[in-house]
Amino acid sequence: MIRAGTLLLGLDLAGTAVFALNGALTGIRVARVDIVGVLTLGMVTALGGGIIRDVIIGYLPPATFRDWRYLVVAATGALVAFLWGRRLDRLSFPIEVFDALGLSFFAVTGASKALDAGLGPVQAVILGAVTGVGGGTIRDVLIGRVPTVLSSGLYAIPALVGALITVVAAELGLRGLPAALVAVAACFAIRLVGIRFDLNAPAPPGLPPS
Amino acid sequence: MIRAGTLLLGLDLAGTAVFALNGALTGIRVARVDIVGVLTLGMVTALGGGIIRDVIIGYLPPATFRDWRYLVVAATGALVAFLWGRRLDRLSFPIEVFDALGLSFFAVTGASKALDAGLGPVQAVILGAVTGVGGGTIRDVLIGRVPTVLSSGLYAIPALVGALITVVAAELGLRGLPAALVAVAACFAIRLVGIRFDLNAPAPPGLPPS
Amino acid sequence: MIRAGTLLLGLDLAGTAVFALNGALTGIRVARVDIVGVLTLGMVTALGGGIIRDVIIGYLPPATFRDWRYLVVAATGALVAFLWGRRLDRLSFPIEVFDALGLSFFAVTGASKALDAGLGPVQAVILGAVTGVGGGTIRDVLIGRVPTVLSSGLYAIPALVGALITVVAAELGLRGLPAALVAVAACFAIRLVGIRFDLNAPAPPGLPPS
Repeated sequence: MIRAGTLLLGLDLAGTAVFALNGALTGIRVARVDIVGVLTLGMVTALGGGIIRDVIIGYLPPATFRDWRYLVVAATGALVAFLWGRRLDRLSFPIEVFDALGLSFFAVTGASKALDAGLGPVQAVILGAVTGVGGGTIRDVLIGRVPTVLSSGLYAIPALVGALITVVAAELGLRGLPAALVAVAACFAIRLVGIRFDLNAPAPPGLPPS
Repeated sequence: MIRAGTLLLGLDLAGTAVFALNGALTGIRVARVDIVGVLTLGMVTALGGGIIRDVIIGYLPPATFRDWRYLVVAATGALVAFLWGRRLDRLSFPIEVFDALGLSFFAVTGASKALDAGLGPVQAVILGAVTGVGGGTIRDVLIGRVPTVLSSGLYAIPALVGALITVVAAELGLRGLPAALVAVAACFAIRLVGIRFDLNAPAPPGLPPS
Repeated sequence: MIRAGTLLLGLDLAGTAVFALNGALTGIRVARVDIVGVLTLGMVTALGGGIIRDVIIGYLPPATFRDWRYLVVAATGALVAFLWGRRLDRLSFPIEVFDALGLSFFAVTGASKALDAGLGPVQAVILGAVTGVGGGTIRDVLIGRVPTVLSSGLYAIPALVGALITVVAAELGLRGLPAALVAVAACFAIRLVGIRFDLNAPAPPGLPPS
C-alpha cells in the first residue's frame, strides 16, 4: 500500500516536471529568452505555486527548497524544453494534456498540505487553486503578459473543483489514494473538456466574452 | 469601550471590502477579465498589502488566512463589482472616497501590527504604507500596467503620513481609538485634497511632471 | 582581523547602496516616476533579492527589516539618484561597474546566509543568485519590462559562479575573508568581461540570439 506521504511526493514531482516543461516552452514561444530565462521561467512555473502556498502556511523553507529533487526535476524539465523546444512545440496537444495533469496534481496536493498545516477548509480550497495556478501566473507576469488564468479558458475553475473535492473528502474522514484520485480525475476531466470545447468562465454582465 | 483588537479588526474588514470592490472594478475597466479574474484582482487588491506585511513581520499564516472573514468579505466585494460593475463605474467619485478610506485604515492598522510584532519605528512606517499600497501594486502588475502609485497622484504619501502619526503616537504611549482616528483622518484628508486638486508628488528635477 | 559577521554586513551594505542608486536611475530612465516611484524602485532593487532569500529560508523579519541601516542606506542611494539623476546618467560605465560589484557582494552573502540557515549546497547556490538578481527582476516587472536578466547579457551566470565558489569553499571548510574575496572577484570579473565584450548567454537552438 502506498503511504500518503509517498503519494503526495510522487504527484508533486510529476506535476513539477510537466509544469517546468510547459513553462519553459511558453517562455521560448512568447519572449526572447536565453538559457537563463528558459531555466528561470521553467522553474518559476513549476515551483512558484508551491512556494506561495508554503510561505502563506508558514512552512519555511518551502518544500521545494527542503528536497533537492524538486529543484533538479524542475531544472531538468526546463533544460529539455531548451534543447528540444522547437520539436516539442509541434506537440501542443499532448503538452496541454500533461499540463492539465500537473494542474490536477498541484491543486490536490496544495489543498492537502494546507489542511495538514491546520488551515480551515475555505483557505485550503483557495490555497489548492493557488498552488495550481500560481507558478504560471508569475511566469506570465515575468514575460509581460496579463496572466491567461485571469481572462480566458477554464483553468482556475477545475483547480478549485479538485481542491474542493479534496477538502470535502478530508472533512468526511476520507484521505489517501482513492479520494486523491477522484479529485485529480475531476480536475483533469473539467480541464480537458474546457480545452476541447473551448469553454470560458463567465465574463462580467454587459461585456462580450473575451 | 471598544477594545483595540476589535477596533483593528473592524477597520481592517472595512478596508478589505472597499479595496476588493475598487480592485475588481479596476480589473473590469482596464483588462478583459472573466469571473476568475475579477475575483482574483479584487481579492489581491484587498488582501495583498496585508499579506506582504505579515510575511515580512513573520506572522504566518497571515491574518487574512487565519480568519475566514477576510476572505469572505474580499470575495463578496469583488462579486458585487462583477455583478453590478457597469452601474458602479458611473459612481467613480464615491468609489475614490471609499478607496481613500480603505487606504487610511490599512496604513494605520499596518503600522500598528508592525509595532506589535516588535519592529522598529522606521520599519513600522514603511510597513504601514506597504499595507496600504501593496495590494493595488500587485493588481496593477497583474493587469499589465506600471503601478499608478509610482508615477502619479498623492497615494503613498498620505499612507506614509497616517502610518507616521500612528507610530509617533505609539512612541508617546498613545494607542487606541483617538490616536487611530487622528491618523486615519489625516491620511484620508490628504488623499482627498490630492484627488480634488489633482496634486502630484514631485518628479525628478529636470523632468516634466507626468 | 575582520569577523565574518562584520564582513557580511559591510559587503551587504555596500551592495545595497549601489543597487539602490542603479535601480532608481533605471526607474527614472525607463518609466515616468515621481519621488515615490524613484524611492520605491531604488529600495526594491536594493532590498528585494535579500527579502526573497530571507522569506525562503524562513529568517523573518528579513535582515533588511531587522537593521534600520539597510533601509536608510537604500533610501539614501535612491534619493541621490532622484536629486542628481541627470548628471549620474552620463556616467553609465562607472554605474555598471558599481552594479557589478553589488551583484558580486549579494551573490556571495546570499549563498553564505543560505548555508548558515542549514540549506543544502544546491539550494545555497540558487539562493545566492536569487539574492543578486531578485531585486532588479522585481524592479523590471514594476516598470513594465521583461526582466533583462532573462534575455540578455551575462548577469545571472556570474552570480551563479560567485555563489558556487562560496558554497564549494564552505564545503571544504574555507569560510571568511579570503574565500569571500575570491568569490566576489570571480563574479565581478565575469560580469565585467561580459559587459566589455557584449557577451550573451546561449539562446535556444534554432533561434537567433536576441
